[in-house]
Amino acid sequence: MKILMITEDRNDDSEVLYPFYRMQEQGWDVDVAALTKKTVASKYHFTVEANKSVAECNAADYDGLILPGGSAPEKLRLNADAVRLTKEIFAAGKPVCAICHGPQMLISADVVRGKKATCYPGIADDLKNAGALYEDAPVVVDGNLVTSRRPQDLPYWMREFVKLFK
Amino acid sequence: MKILMITEDRNDDSEVLYPFYRMQEQGWDVDVAALTKKTVASKYHFTVEANKSVAECNAADYDGLILPGGSAPEKLRLNADAVRLTKEIFAAGKPVCAICHGPQMLISADVVRGKKATCYPGIADDLKNAGALYEDAPVVVDGNLVTSRRPQDLPYWMREFVKLFK
Repeated sequence: MKILMITEDRNDDSEVLYPFYRMQEQGWDVDVAALTKKTVASKYHFTVEANKSVAECNAADYDGLILPGGSAPEKLRLNADAVRLTKEIFAAGKPVCAICHGPQMLISADVVRGKKATCYPGIADDLKNAGALYEDAPVVVDGNLVTSRRPQDLPYWMREFVKLFK
Repeated sequence: MKILMITEDRNDDSEVLYPFYRMQEQGWDVDVAALTKKTVASKYHFTVEANKSVAECNAADYDGLILPGGSAPEKLRLNADAVRLTKEIFAAGKPVCAICHGPQMLISADVVRGKKATCYPGIADDLKNAGALYEDAPVVVDGNLVTSRRPQDLPYWMREFVKLFK
């Protein structure tokens, strides 16, 4: 399996760390894409190497997509390539997961209309306005979409994401 | 399953976070024990609730043990209860895993004699002096013992730990 994670500076450390290591534990490849190839600095301490820029990524090369939260999605949703990748991987029916503020990317990619989903409480109204059927739960699965609310939901989020590949 | 994690303040955030959430992803219970019941502050930003003191824990109540690193093990190895728990859970043949400076607990519990093991490079001489057959590898498994060197090894460490329960 080859998984794409799209993130940027000021992501939530744990929301990058956990899925990044979790995919490696599965034995799967993870490409991390940011606006440019660089060392991405999380909010508090940790860093992750973005080995790709979003511009150079092709949706067809990936089996799934991970969208962590933090302040990163507010920056990424303004980038056409980041939004395109989200839209295309979603449209291909491949597993897509987003946590916390990650669903801001789903809103900008306009893929949540009529879909059950959750997110950080502070952006719940935005998710509803984008047409999602919002639920306040640790993890919400609707077809190929897996969403969670916050770092404490990470175990439930990854459990459901991994399950979609079986 | 019921897993015990022993840690203290100034642990490495990722070495607590990853196994803590990973055990929950498995659907297993995790008790976190510190010198006292308290909010344990990792080195950089994150915290975890220690719902137990090491003094009140019984080895017989647990199916496995997790020993994260950071500066915490140097504090914990001076505590008789923390060392007793490590020794007893190990002696019962239950899975025990340690990463980075976590093996300092294995040294003080005197359980590595003749065992293949690894640790953070800076304490490799101490692990050898304690009688371990030191190997420089992302993860080393010898019977019920799983050891790793550093945060980047977390996926390999947890993969082998979880495998021991199958």
